Amino acid sequence: MLRNFCRGFATAKKEKIAMIGSGNFGTALVRLLGRNAKRHEVFDDEVRMYVYEEQVDGKNLTEIINTKHVNVKYLPEGPLPPNVVAVPDLAKAAEGATMIVFCTPHQFLKPMIKTVKPVLGPNYKALSAVKGIDFDDNGIVLISDLIRKELGCDTSILMGANVANEMATDSFCETTIGYSDATNGELFKLAFHDPAFNVGLVNDTVGVELCGALKNIVAIGAGFCDGLKYGGNTKAAIIRIGLKEMKKFCNTFYKGIQDDTFLESCGVADLITTCYGGRNRKCAEAYAASGGKKTFDDIEREILKGQKLQGTLTAKEVNHVLKMKGMEAQFPFFTQVYKISYENAPVDSITTTPYY
Amino acid sequence: MLRNFCRGFATAKKEKIAMIGSGNFGTALVRLLGRNAKRHEVFDDEVRMYVYEEQVDGKNLTEIINTKHVNVKYLPEGPLPPNVVAVPDLAKAAEGATMIVFCTPHQFLKPMIKTVKPVLGPNYKALSAVKGIDFDDNGIVLISDLIRKELGCDTSILMGANVANEMATDSFCETTIGYSDATNGELFKLAFHDPAFNVGLVNDTVGVELCGALKNIVAIGAGFCDGLKYGGNTKAAIIRIGLKEMKKFCNTFYKGIQDDTFLESCGVADLITTCYGGRNRKCAEAYAASGGKKTFDDIEREILKGQKLQGTLTAKEVNHVLKMKGMEAQFPFFTQVYKISYENAPVDSITTTPYY
Repeated sequence: MLRNFCRGFATAKKEKIAMIGSGNFGTALVRLLGRNAKRHEVFDDEVRMYVYEEQVDGKNLTEIINTKHVNVKYLPEGPLPPNVVAVPDLAKAAEGATMIVFCTPHQFLKPMIKTVKPVLGPNYKALSAVKGIDFDDNGIVLISDLIRKELGCDTSILMGANVANEMATDSFCETTIGYSDATNGELFKLAFHDPAFNVGLVNDTVGVELCGALKNIVAIGAGFCDGLKYGGNTKAAIIRIGLKEMKKFCNTFYKGIQDDTFLESCGVADLITTCYGGRNRKCAEAYAASGGKKTFDDIEREILKGQKLQGTLTAKEVNHVLKMKGMEAQFPFFTQVYKISYENAPVDSITTTPYY
Repeated sequence: MLRNFCRGFATAKKEKIAMIGSGNFGTALVRLLGRNAKRHEVFDDEVRMYVYEEQVDGKNLTEIINTKHVNVKYLPEGPLPPNVVAVPDLAKAAEGATMIVFCTPHQFLKPMIKTVKPVLGPNYKALSAVKGIDFDDNGIVLISDLIRKELGCDTSILMGANVANEMATDSFCETTIGYSDATNGELFKLAFHDPAFNVGLVNDTVGVELCGALKNIVAIGAGFCDGLKYGGNTKAAIIRIGLKEMKKFCNTFYKGIQDDTFLESCGVADLITTCYGGRNRKCAEAYAASGGKKTFDDIEREILKGQKLQGTLTAKEVNHVLKMKGMEAQFPFFTQVYKISYENAPVDSITTTPYY
């Protein structure tokens, strides 16, 4: 399949890749994009990366990246291929791109898309590697839907057990691309796949995206178990119950969810990583271990230096949806994580709640 | 459903439960059986447990259990209900039993069944909580098939993320009962289910039993990652690849496997526990960390005091099956665990093998 692409596209106009974002994860991803742009004829060699300009030791970050070929600020351990070009001007970075990858905090997306849209190349398609989901008064807003709406193009999703610092040293890992257009799915796979970064494909953008958000609720529950010094049996049970509820949530509120999605990297693997490492687990552990002496606000200040925790926020927004639909009782695990985090329910109710 | 049982059976002859086995796990299970025998009218109050007689401080173990109500030798932290009666004579322990539970090393099963069969009560059914699977020249022998054949009765399976020492203190956990006869499945659920021991039911004895055995191969792979100091991304990828191959193996060689089985406690939860704790993981970690200086025989001597490791043994027997069928290439993960364990393949080939 991949070989056919290379042949079929070899004489056609080449696909031009742009990466919008240059944080930790974006930089880890663009290393692979650069490598594959050189490796496969279907892609134009140059991969532009939009970099929000900053000064590092009195120099522009983009200049450092373009001379030293490393993002010294956000991924110093991962050298970049020289065909990755850092561009401080968003419109110039995206100019002529036919495959545009977003990897920025989601609150910046809308204005960025406005700038990017007029300059893109023919038949452009997008991929979102943006973490999390958004919410409005009506409930959940998927980032892929936002991109589809604002950019008006087919949008794939990339999620998986992908800690950027491990990717930077080419440690073996996997990821999942959820697609709705199979050709675009294969093209994005070709752009990211590497011996050290095994890409799985599923025809399910919604499931992939929701896994990436809902896993953080489960990690809060797993962290509670750690903080209460519960053993491996109990933690594994809580993770499993969380996984089942993730699947149930997806199938209750969306159509076309694939069972297989939950056995892909974006499902069970990312969930495991998040429940054994990760900041959501860590903060929930600290909350439980404090025995009521600290609030999540205290912990965000201490551990996250004031950043907001994804897992509790997602639990709150998901609870808002469940309340609106009168379905709290059908999602007892998500509901209990919410009640412990926001309504002072005792932490040990995470296991004394009768789940099923 | 459970309530109906209690009503329906209340005036009928009661079910009589016997536990064959009194090790760590058997004792943890019989605590629950004793509790539920008292709790539900469908069961005769007394639960007999066959105990291989040993001397502890100059006294018979059965006498200690029947006076102190604790198995001081194998589960000192878990008090037993007084209606659990330790019996040193196998035939007497099983006499009149209509629900017989096996929890012994599988090599003892055949001769035990011969003793037990003539004394059982009417319409007896069995449940196996025996760990692992057996092998003969033709390949895999499921313990449930062995019991079905030798005892001639319907046989359910119990497997899950159930470390006995955690169960002994009533830490919350889950388990899975695989059944083929739904009524017997519900009866065994009623016998084991407890607020601290949540029983899930699946109509799939084979899937449940194979999960319990194949997970140990995956734990060897996960242990290799730990020994090589690989990060969370990599280990999660290996666990996921292993889970997919477990599922593929079940579906390739057996009929009637349920997808849901792999999301039950016997599947993903037990796999997680085994890959983060457990002796298979630990020994594989030591093997990888030794950098070729130690063999698995050395490690079994040092860490397991000469006991054999389940995971490598299962990898070997599974490889025997795959070789016979010419299917090694279709199970690259199982094959690679075998090659590293038995054919001196480099340990880091656990991630450099192209899996899919």
